Amino acid sequence: MSKRYAVVLAAGKGTRMKSRLYKVLHPVGGKPMVQHVVDQINKVEVDQIVTVIGHGAEKVKDQLGEEVDYVLQEEQLGTGHAVMQTEGLLGDLDGTTLVVCGDTPLISSETMDALLRHHEKENAKVTLLTAHAEDPFGYGRVIRNEDGTVSKIVEHKDASIHEQAVQEINTGTYCFDNRTLFEALKQVTNDNVQGEYYLPDVIEIVKDQQETVAAYQTPAFEETIGVNDRVALSQAEQYMKQRILTHHMKNGVTIIDPQQTYITSDVKIGSDTVVYPGTFIHGNTTIGEEAVIGPNTEIKDSQIGNETVVKQSVVHDSEVGHNVSIGPFAHIRPQSELGNDTKIGNFVEIKKSKLDDGSKASHLSYIGDAEIGKDVNLGCGSITVNYDGKNKHLTKVGDGAFIGCNSNLIAPVNVGENAYVAAGSTITDDVPGNSLSIARARQTNKEGYVSKIQEKQNNHRG
Amino acid sequence: MSKRYAVVLAAGKGTRMKSRLYKVLHPVGGKPMVQHVVDQINKVEVDQIVTVIGHGAEKVKDQLGEEVDYVLQEEQLGTGHAVMQTEGLLGDLDGTTLVVCGDTPLISSETMDALLRHHEKENAKVTLLTAHAEDPFGYGRVIRNEDGTVSKIVEHKDASIHEQAVQEINTGTYCFDNRTLFEALKQVTNDNVQGEYYLPDVIEIVKDQQETVAAYQTPAFEETIGVNDRVALSQAEQYMKQRILTHHMKNGVTIIDPQQTYITSDVKIGSDTVVYPGTFIHGNTTIGEEAVIGPNTEIKDSQIGNETVVKQSVVHDSEVGHNVSIGPFAHIRPQSELGNDTKIGNFVEIKKSKLDDGSKASHLSYIGDAEIGKDVNLGCGSITVNYDGKNKHLTKVGDGAFIGCNSNLIAPVNVGENAYVAAGSTITDDVPGNSLSIARARQTNKEGYVSKIQEKQNNHRG
Amino acid sequence: MSKRYAVVLAAGKGTRMKSRLYKVLHPVGGKPMVQHVVDQINKVEVDQIVTVIGHGAEKVKDQLGEEVDYVLQEEQLGTGHAVMQTEGLLGDLDGTTLVVCGDTPLISSETMDALLRHHEKENAKVTLLTAHAEDPFGYGRVIRNEDGTVSKIVEHKDASIHEQAVQEINTGTYCFDNRTLFEALKQVTNDNVQGEYYLPDVIEIVKDQQETVAAYQTPAFEETIGVNDRVALSQAEQYMKQRILTHHMKNGVTIIDPQQTYITSDVKIGSDTVVYPGTFIHGNTTIGEEAVIGPNTEIKDSQIGNETVVKQSVVHDSEVGHNVSIGPFAHIRPQSELGNDTKIGNFVEIKKSKLDDGSKASHLSYIGDAEIGKDVNLGCGSITVNYDGKNKHLTKVGDGAFIGCNSNLIAPVNVGENAYVAAGSTITDDVPGNSLSIARARQTNKEGYVSKIQEKQNNHRG
Repeated sequence: MSKRYAVVLAAGKGTRMKSRLYKVLHPVGGKPMVQHVVDQINKVEVDQIVTVIGHGAEKVKDQLGEEVDYVLQEEQLGTGHAVMQTEGLLGDLDGTTLVVCGDTPLISSETMDALLRHHEKENAKVTLLTAHAEDPFGYGRVIRNEDGTVSKIVEHKDASIHEQAVQEINTGTYCFDNRTLFEALKQVTNDNVQGEYYLPDVIEIVKDQQETVAAYQTPAFEETIGVNDRVALSQAEQYMKQRILTHHMKNGVTIIDPQQTYITSDVKIGSDTVVYPGTFIHGNTTIGEEAVIGPNTEIKDSQIGNETVVKQSVVHDSEVGHNVSIGPFAHIRPQSELGNDTKIGNFVEIKKSKLDDGSKASHLSYIGDAEIGKDVNLGCGSITVNYDGKNKHLTKVGDGAFIGCNSNLIAPVNVGENAYVAAGSTITDDVPGNSLSIARARQTNKEGYVSKIQEKQNNHRG
Repeated sequence: MSKRYAVVLAAGKGTRMKSRLYKVLHPVGGKPMVQHVVDQINKVEVDQIVTVIGHGAEKVKDQLGEEVDYVLQEEQLGTGHAVMQTEGLLGDLDGTTLVVCGDTPLISSETMDALLRHHEKENAKVTLLTAHAEDPFGYGRVIRNEDGTVSKIVEHKDASIHEQAVQEINTGTYCFDNRTLFEALKQVTNDNVQGEYYLPDVIEIVKDQQETVAAYQTPAFEETIGVNDRVALSQAEQYMKQRILTHHMKNGVTIIDPQQTYITSDVKIGSDTVVYPGTFIHGNTTIGEEAVIGPNTEIKDSQIGNETVVKQSVVHDSEVGHNVSIGPFAHIRPQSELGNDTKIGNFVEIKKSKLDDGSKASHLSYIGDAEIGKDVNLGCGSITVNYDGKNKHLTKVGDGAFIGCNSNLIAPVNVGENAYVAAGSTITDDVPGNSLSIARARQTNKEGYVSKIQEKQNNHRG
Repeated sequence: MSKRYAVVLAAGKGTRMKSRLYKVLHPVGGKPMVQHVVDQINKVEVDQIVTVIGHGAEKVKDQLGEEVDYVLQEEQLGTGHAVMQTEGLLGDLDGTTLVVCGDTPLISSETMDALLRHHEKENAKVTLLTAHAEDPFGYGRVIRNEDGTVSKIVEHKDASIHEQAVQEINTGTYCFDNRTLFEALKQVTNDNVQGEYYLPDVIEIVKDQQETVAAYQTPAFEETIGVNDRVALSQAEQYMKQRILTHHMKNGVTIIDPQQTYITSDVKIGSDTVVYPGTFIHGNTTIGEEAVIGPNTEIKDSQIGNETVVKQSVVHDSEVGHNVSIGPFAHIRPQSELGNDTKIGNFVEIKKSKLDDGSKASHLSYIGDAEIGKDVNLGCGSITVNYDGKNKHLTKVGDGAFIGCNSNLIAPVNVGENAYVAAGSTITDDVPGNSLSIARARQTNKEGYVSKIQEKQNNHRG
């Protein structure tokens, strides 16, 4: 196989996005558009990727890091001019060069691969990626010769009535013989209304050399969407979502309503798991088998075990075991570990804490900076007082302990194994194992007090 | 009317579902697919339903119970072979036999009825249920004679170009003269690539006998969807949802966004009730008139009164009166009863408790195993301490009582009528009616303490 | 420009809505249908708007107030009869009269303006608003003469096969020369099956006078939807939503999923704000730039600052500053003010309270009727006890104070600057600045108590 290169065009400003965020950095499916493009290019094994940067250059570099080379296009003088900037890095090489726009986040490696193979099969110097558009209005039309090679590309505004009826459109992704590309680019002029150097002008030049210009039409029109404004961004988001969800459904995950389910690209989900609507599963998340996730749940960067149920809750950066019950209305914050068979009920927040197997915090609790043993019952309203206004401190509770309702564990503090903290207690000192600890006032009933008060008030009024 | 029988094909494995759950048991609209099929068959008055079971036989029996008879197809050797298993129960009978696949959850009794009537009107021995497919790719095409009777069914892969253009497809639901069916089945062979006995082969055999093979084309293509993988499952879910929601809207319920509303088939809702998006209403639930449900709410197996508002909350297996306000972020757990004009506010959990008319738990409370009288005010953070680590105990609060904020009622305990529990108290003993009960420590202010501590810390550092 | 008048038809009953709420008062995008119609008419500068009311007359008046005049149609005898009721107010005037149905909530001022301009350009006496319907079934068809003027309108049931093929339909919105209108109305009869006076009959009458009847076809078919039942209501809701969201996206707001986002018409949102699905933004709400709203969030009549994040929460009638973090699962109730850099965490309710810059209530708190200074830390479970069963009282907390976990501030009460309230305290009296206040019982550990109890229980059983 001859050498392969790729040029990613990522220098445009994206004015119509009306954003401070640089266009190609807008996320689709939770990942910046240009990163999708580079990830897919990496799957077709190219020897070098050169990204043309301009507006927001530093931020694009921060995103893509060292996996690509960069050239700076200081002024944006057209797509031909953009590719020309890579001459210093690529101009002298033999091989095939793929040119992809950084704002086409849906284009897949399969399509790039099909384009490259078609290019090679046809012995072409240039191969366009084209698509069939239901409504081709506004796109450049691809006019083919009888033998299937490309005669020309006509911009919409220049197209005759007959040409306007053509539904095969130019997508802006190309494959070039590398040397041919750079020779032709030198002949491209900016003699047009916009005063720009256009990459498609290369086609005419190559054809004049009697070389073959081929076109590969992808059946997947939606992959070729370029994102220029937020409306297109939301469409790209829809397609990306659909692609990801179909993958999971084919793998045996029940998605009750794919329209209302948001899963980013790197999430893994086991079979027979059911995902209810209004659910977001993001980042580096793995979910086991036969789990139930949602409705209205958000899980990010977390590991969730088999047969675990998470409903109407938020879980971030945490590890959750098997057969755990979370929610409704629970919040598991980063660096938490929930063992198997644990239960986190409604209005409970867990932060940077470990609950060992079988422990429960069923209602209205805050457990932060804590190490909770096995089979501990954290009563309703129990709170770890982990912050003294200056520092955070640790709470430890031994296996089998019972923490009464509405009690405060003022950290740093240890509660021993099988200890019992009475409801309503504020615990400031360690509780030995097997002990009962109590810290509350005795009850006094003032009989008839309410009636007396009311009489008094009535007399006052009288 | 001659006798009617039905055969439900429910023995296939459903490999493409990639599931441990047996295919026909996957729920659509909250009810297993095969149960939908049987429920609809029951509406067209058949004398006997025989279900052919195989994979997961016991679980299908558990689902359908005694409303149908069962025959076991030990090896899955094709649809013809499946129907043949019913010979012992149906082979000797006169009448009409409907054959329906257990994985077509959307087929309605209206369509079955139209099929049966067409069969009788045409004096046919076999009548196919067909549909018009926008995209017939992959389906068996129905080729008709000039008189409208069926000439043959051609599988997609065997179809000529002209036959491929036909958009009338075979849906896999049939109606047979029962004796003709079983005689013809004996002649069906497995002389084909898959080595299976196909039910459609009966058509050729019956035609060779010069008998009429008719076809009834339903206008409702979507009813004929067979579910073979989770993508089709999610489509069936969509159609079922649409059908249910249209029914409610026609009845005077405002559904703000039908795409985002999930109501299972047996739910009843009164007119002028508004349902906001992100809402799930499941099971045996009845909702009154002029209620407001949602957004982002889940109600299951519950009765909700008129003019009641439930927002961003979860309600299970409970009875809720008229003009009640629940949420946002409330959780009503099973066996709760909320009287008229009660209020359950944010971050409140009610479990197995009764609140009589006019009582309120407005914030951050847990009321479990309790009987609360009328016009009781349960202050913010009040908790019934119903569990001692071994058993659950009962809390009773009389009419007109006032429970102060952050107080614990340690069950078993009674608070009398019009009693007043001071904020921050832990109540261990009964409180007589009209009494004030208090159990808290006196406040001490250590003046200048904070400044002194800070000075000390500064000196240390200095 | 000649004078312009508008007649809004709002007297029909709307039986198919099956509602106690009068038809034109059903909201779309959070605003009653007839209000949308009047708001759009107001944008095309008419001299007088007359609303024809009948069923629910008083409630329509309450809604529209004094911005329009009213005439009562006591019996509903058809659209012609309805317009006739306005004769007393409009009959003697020169000018152009727009007639719009009160149940067409999507019709825009742009379309009305185009209709009026077409009417004037064509020198017509009547101009119909028409639209191209993909499926014209059931609509009145517009039959044109060769010169483009209107020949007649044919009701669907009266249309010939050729006329049924016409896809240009009558929308029910008209523009008339005012004097011509009222003269023609006098000739309209109720000699038809329904016994009603139809407004479209005016067309025939005007044509017989050799006057021009023109038609303006809007490209926006969806604007012309009339809402007669809840299914159409939900469709109108979809179109309205789409229109509003497209507007925000074009302005630089990222809407992750427009299908799942509900924003009413008067909301303002700054650029680079991201709105996640399951979110409702209603009423008189303004959101700043680079904010993050949702998922599953409801904001109503509130001002939200720049870079503020609101997740899985509810905010009503409040002012929220810049760089504030709210949620998940927080509830900001009316008349609250949250300063810049404040934080309201999970399971926190704020009601009629002010938190100054930098203050935090991170977990499980209720802050009601309070004035909280700058940089105050309201510990987990801290509660303002604002209600004594009779009245609400005020809590004040000075700058820099630290309120310990699970403490009760019994209002009226003041906590001074930099004061420190110990966890678990119930504060009944004022706390001076820089003081430590504590109100809790000492802890007692009963060692071995749990083991002894268990032994006893075991002996009992033995």
